[in-house]
Amino acid sequence: MGNIFSSLPEKSENESLEELLRHENIKIERIISQGHTSPESGWYDQKENEWVIVLEGSGIILFESGEEVHLKKGDYLNIPSHVRHKVIRTDPDKMTIWLAIHYF
Amino acid sequence: MGNIFSSLPEKSENESLEELLRHENIKIERIISQGHTSPESGWYDQKENEWVIVLEGSGIILFESGEEVHLKKGDYLNIPSHVRHKVIRTDPDKMTIWLAIHYF
Repeated sequence: MGNIFSSLPEKSENESLEELLRHENIKIERIISQGHTSPESGWYDQKENEWVIVLEGSGIILFESGEEVHLKKGDYLNIPSHVRHKVIRTDPDKMTIWLAIHYF
Repeated sequence: MGNIFSSLPEKSENESLEELLRHENIKIERIISQGHTSPESGWYDQKENEWVIVLEGSGIILFESGEEVHLKKGDYLNIPSHVRHKVIRTDPDKMTIWLAIHYF
């Protein structure tokens, strides 16, 4: 057992990623950002699908199509594989905690 | 996009289950309990694995081994397939919101 709100990292220059589960077709990750955007340049273009939920804080995901999705606490979103996207903003004042389910 | 804390059901006699995502090897579900225990009799004996996290409220899972796991907000747990278990208590005073990832 673990707790997603505990063992929080110190504020750092980079996002914090922690793998919570890895299995054949699935990876569950906790991502913590504080004002970070990602990737540093370009787009995420992932071979796996990703279902993501914001558990604390807020963030904005921009899709290559131009669509911006504003996510606040509790909001979840499914991002199919190879749909190019990036995180263009996360709350600068507090931690944003994401739970990401990567699946094939 | 959806929000896991919105469209909450009225208190009812049964747990509320909502499927948030279904794909080949994975199913993501929101489960809401308020004082419910489950299954009504016997044990869950699932052919799929389940990773579960409590996002609000609290619950107790009993395993056939006799182990009791007390889960509060943010606690997550992995339950491999065919590990027999049941939910023997959830918070009677408020909703317990579970996010369950079923995977093969």
